[in-house]
Amino acid sequence: MEFNITFNLDGGKNLTAPAQKGETLLEIAKKVNLAIDAPCSGNGTCGKCRIKLLSGTVESKETRHIDPAEYAEGDRLACSTTVAGEATIYVPAGALAYQNRMKVTDLGTGREREVFTAFQQELQAMDLAGDTGLELLPVRLNEPSLDDAMADTERLLLGLAGQTEEPVTITLYARRKLPSVLRDSGFSCLCLLRKGKNPAILDVFPAGAHPVLPGLAIDIGTTSVSILLVNLETGEPLAVGNAGNGQIRYGADVINRIIESTKPGGLARLHKAVVDECIGPLIRQLCENSGVQPEQVYRAAVAGNTTMTHLFLQVSPEHLRLEPYVPAFFDVGPIRGGEAGIGIHPDAEVLIAPAVGSYVGGDITAGAFSSLIFKKESLSLLIDLGTNGELVFGGSEFLMSCACSAGPAFEGGDISCGMRATDGAIEGVSIDEQTMEPTVRIIGGQKPAGLCGSGLIDIIGELFRCGIINAKGKISREGKRIRRDEYGQGAYVIAFAPESGTGREILLTETDIDSFVRAKGAIFSAIRTMLALLDFPMEAIENVYVAGGIGSGINIKQAIAIGMFPHIPIEQYHYIGNSSLSGAYAMLTSRKAGDLVSGIGKSLTYLELSSHPSYMDEFVAACFLPHTDAALFPPAGG
Amino acid sequence: MEFNITFNLDGGKNLTAPAQKGETLLEIAKKVNLAIDAPCSGNGTCGKCRIKLLSGTVESKETRHIDPAEYAEGDRLACSTTVAGEATIYVPAGALAYQNRMKVTDLGTGREREVFTAFQQELQAMDLAGDTGLELLPVRLNEPSLDDAMADTERLLLGLAGQTEEPVTITLYARRKLPSVLRDSGFSCLCLLRKGKNPAILDVFPAGAHPVLPGLAIDIGTTSVSILLVNLETGEPLAVGNAGNGQIRYGADVINRIIESTKPGGLARLHKAVVDECIGPLIRQLCENSGVQPEQVYRAAVAGNTTMTHLFLQVSPEHLRLEPYVPAFFDVGPIRGGEAGIGIHPDAEVLIAPAVGSYVGGDITAGAFSSLIFKKESLSLLIDLGTNGELVFGGSEFLMSCACSAGPAFEGGDISCGMRATDGAIEGVSIDEQTMEPTVRIIGGQKPAGLCGSGLIDIIGELFRCGIINAKGKISREGKRIRRDEYGQGAYVIAFAPESGTGREILLTETDIDSFVRAKGAIFSAIRTMLALLDFPMEAIENVYVAGGIGSGINIKQAIAIGMFPHIPIEQYHYIGNSSLSGAYAMLTSRKAGDLVSGIGKSLTYLELSSHPSYMDEFVAACFLPHTDAALFPPAGG
Repeated sequence: MEFNITFNLDGGKNLTAPAQKGETLLEIAKKVNLAIDAPCSGNGTCGKCRIKLLSGTVESKETRHIDPAEYAEGDRLACSTTVAGEATIYVPAGALAYQNRMKVTDLGTGREREVFTAFQQELQAMDLAGDTGLELLPVRLNEPSLDDAMADTERLLLGLAGQTEEPVTITLYARRKLPSVLRDSGFSCLCLLRKGKNPAILDVFPAGAHPVLPGLAIDIGTTSVSILLVNLETGEPLAVGNAGNGQIRYGADVINRIIESTKPGGLARLHKAVVDECIGPLIRQLCENSGVQPEQVYRAAVAGNTTMTHLFLQVSPEHLRLEPYVPAFFDVGPIRGGEAGIGIHPDAEVLIAPAVGSYVGGDITAGAFSSLIFKKESLSLLIDLGTNGELVFGGSEFLMSCACSAGPAFEGGDISCGMRATDGAIEGVSIDEQTMEPTVRIIGGQKPAGLCGSGLIDIIGELFRCGIINAKGKISREGKRIRRDEYGQGAYVIAFAPESGTGREILLTETDIDSFVRAKGAIFSAIRTMLALLDFPMEAIENVYVAGGIGSGINIKQAIAIGMFPHIPIEQYHYIGNSSLSGAYAMLTSRKAGDLVSGIGKSLTYLELSSHPSYMDEFVAACFLPHTDAALFPPAGG
Repeated sequence: MEFNITFNLDGGKNLTAPAQKGETLLEIAKKVNLAIDAPCSGNGTCGKCRIKLLSGTVESKETRHIDPAEYAEGDRLACSTTVAGEATIYVPAGALAYQNRMKVTDLGTGREREVFTAFQQELQAMDLAGDTGLELLPVRLNEPSLDDAMADTERLLLGLAGQTEEPVTITLYARRKLPSVLRDSGFSCLCLLRKGKNPAILDVFPAGAHPVLPGLAIDIGTTSVSILLVNLETGEPLAVGNAGNGQIRYGADVINRIIESTKPGGLARLHKAVVDECIGPLIRQLCENSGVQPEQVYRAAVAGNTTMTHLFLQVSPEHLRLEPYVPAFFDVGPIRGGEAGIGIHPDAEVLIAPAVGSYVGGDITAGAFSSLIFKKESLSLLIDLGTNGELVFGGSEFLMSCACSAGPAFEGGDISCGMRATDGAIEGVSIDEQTMEPTVRIIGGQKPAGLCGSGLIDIIGELFRCGIINAKGKISREGKRIRRDEYGQGAYVIAFAPESGTGREILLTETDIDSFVRAKGAIFSAIRTMLALLDFPMEAIENVYVAGGIGSGINIKQAIAIGMFPHIPIEQYHYIGNSSLSGAYAMLTSRKAGDLVSGIGKSLTYLELSSHPSYMDEFVAACFLPHTDAALFPPAGG
């Protein structure tokens, strides 16, 4: 029996999908490309897929995320609600916000900007700036006549002959523009030459034009996509864009994505979800905001983990998760804009940061570059807090990497009030030990909508410091900020409904705390295991570089206090922002940097933690606040 | 005021378009991409756009093509009928046949096959065969293990390292297939390598596979498109496809196409009409018939006149018709399959035969190659009978070319009963001098539907020989085969209605004869002018190569008798079929042949006839049967 389910979107749009009895609303929404948030992959734990039944019949499981009053008003979780007849469902903006919200801004003025500017200066100091291989060549040609009816492109090649080292080709894109450009400017023009192997004229402009040469640095994260639009002549970022990775509706982590990719049509769906629904629209919006044409983006660099890179290129990632864990490729070499399918210049070079293994990808090779640890004689540790936690340890002598499955907690997934580090996210928290009242710092400065990664670290650190939660992550005090459900499960109220941007209480539950503790435990135990296997003590680490899009205000002291990061002097910690994006930026603006990233890809050794039994023991020991071995960390409140 | 016009197609499909009062049905049909034939560009002269009014109101001009009885039954010409209200129009298959009929066959067994086989043998004798640069390399790789988790493409490159001269790249297409191919065949595989500059692996197959390597030779004519699907390993043609060029609805000749291209959106419309509506579907049908995948077509070669090549690449041909007549390009070098947009392998090399000038294009450089006149010490003349007539004269010492606007008569346009050389076309005619009764030879052997070029030459030659038409092309005898309209205009009945495949009489009118006489006059006067300018007598021509898709049975004796071709011994004439397609075939199957065609492009001198006043005098003198100077030709009937 087939029923029609109508989704009534916030904003007025309606989508109707046919459905079978027993299908979940989340599954049905996918059929009409409606990306309802489900970072928990639809198992009912995250509570982000909250929708409202307006009319009709459904069957719903009880959930701790919806209280009886809300249930009576029609609130349901899309993942736990199945079809029993025709129904009309209201989908609030919040249920689409985690993954889809697209935001284009300039680079901001806060800590991210500072970090980025410092990185730019370091690149300049290393002579790794302004080396894109693009050059604007002015050319003056003879006007054709009946006695000299040479074709336009042949005429241009003749005019260029003295100016380039080897013969150049003229791209079809430039050929299409050339006739009118030449006639608009008396047969003088400005040619955009891409030097290097197979030099080519990418574009032509009338003489005297001052074209912007835009490029794109693209970080494809499992949870979020970040893109930097860059002026390739100056290296200046023109705008930055962020969006959730549209693949989230097929699973929060890479394993679920890989499984989805092996289903019929799955690979094409995942490719479309990230390329057509996310990267493409974000590029168009970035370009529109900056007044440039997407097809005049002449160069791009992409960094992402191995699964993301495979899906970006529509290459099956199936074998990444099957022993012996072999990717289809490590270093793919530049592809063409036309092949990438992202609407930029068809002959733009699109560089892809190389992977090292199934679980150490281009995000890490690019990140290891941008941390610059590969140039330092001293030993450093890079911690990249993404959906996968990834570590690189070493220096100019050696580089070792490993990955651990932290889950999406740091990026706002798997946490009932979690969100990405965008407007409305609480990125910093302090709590009064006596009153238990919080003071929050919110991105964008408006009412809070949820917690991003840095806020999460802060609040857990503060709850622990204030004795509100114990070493097991259980709430051990009572008060007006504490909620208990019928099973005694506790929660801390960060914002009461009137203070909240969503109109509902923002709560941190014991389940959320548990998710977080597992995530931080995964990170810390990976650090411990890797160093132990290499026979280095924690003290050997001279600098720690912390990367990831978890919000710019990460409180290192708190992260140490709760046992997430090693207890070494806080001055040795450096926040380097989205290191994958920075690495892509370096590849974009410097061919030499691109070669260095390729070199890191070849020299980085991958350590498979799962083949070391000690890792599981370390993980279990690390799933406490701060740790079962409390001596590893400063005393609570210290 | 807007009305709905519904087109009721033969076969049952309906298309409805909104229309304004006063718009012609032909214009309205274009809006819904309904390609009603109008080789005369819709000026009412060709009569091919005959449709039937089923209901509603229209306004129609009188036309000699429709008699009062037919008019009473609703017959109209779409070009001469304007909207006056809602209407439903029946569009018979015949009104779509001239341009759209797509036909895929093997190469046939007749004269075309003989001509082609002889050409193949000549290529072999010249060591110009089997040199496509494609090679199948078997590679055996070590299976990956936990200790050797190298990625698939890096593993393949390692395996190939000893077998190729320089480093190869692996195309994205091959990367996408590689993981499953390797695992399906125990990590042995067969790689399709394209050698030469930037060598690349185009495809991979399981070890032991015997893939066909298909390629395409494409001739883009102003009126017709012909495509040969070729087995690149053996050079054997697998199938040949023909279709009308979908651009015909925007004008019968290149000048009208160029004008259309300068209108808003015109360039994209013309590109779409030939690439998306004609070449693409024809390739799909060819591949389907031969059991190959279009994306596994690994190489292609395209020949067409300068306007057709520009439109194929979506480059504006605007300046071809504006003094000083400068093309956007002469020799475009190979483009990629993905750029060509014809659905073949994205990294296939697509060669484009080079142009020499605005009106001597790749069809002529390819044709000059396939005539092989560039290798001969003796002087030869190549006559290519297309919508433009093009001539090449010379030998190994020099090559001179010129073009004349013959119009589409030889391809069946501008002739009321004209059609392309496909099934139903009369390709040969003889007439009994006494009874005036014709005997016809029909392509496909069924009832006649019209006249193709070779049939047209024959019938005019026969009518002239029998004294049925005089030197001015006027009908000068009477009888049951002769019709006169109310103005005294004569026509010869080739087939009475019951004998005709269309159910209507097949008539050759004095207007048709006049169109033909102008076309043959253009050809002969171009030959005379070119030779005179070069100071060669007609007798200097040792061989004449006649090319063009006008039907395989061209009667040279008749063509001489009516003053179309020079009066030199008939043994010196050679019919070489579609020389543009043969040239594309040579480029496809031999890289050396491709280089030779490029060389012809550089050495061929273009003579602009229109800048020589003597050409117009010659033309006027040639617009008689056989010529005003009858001494140039054998006596009639002789």
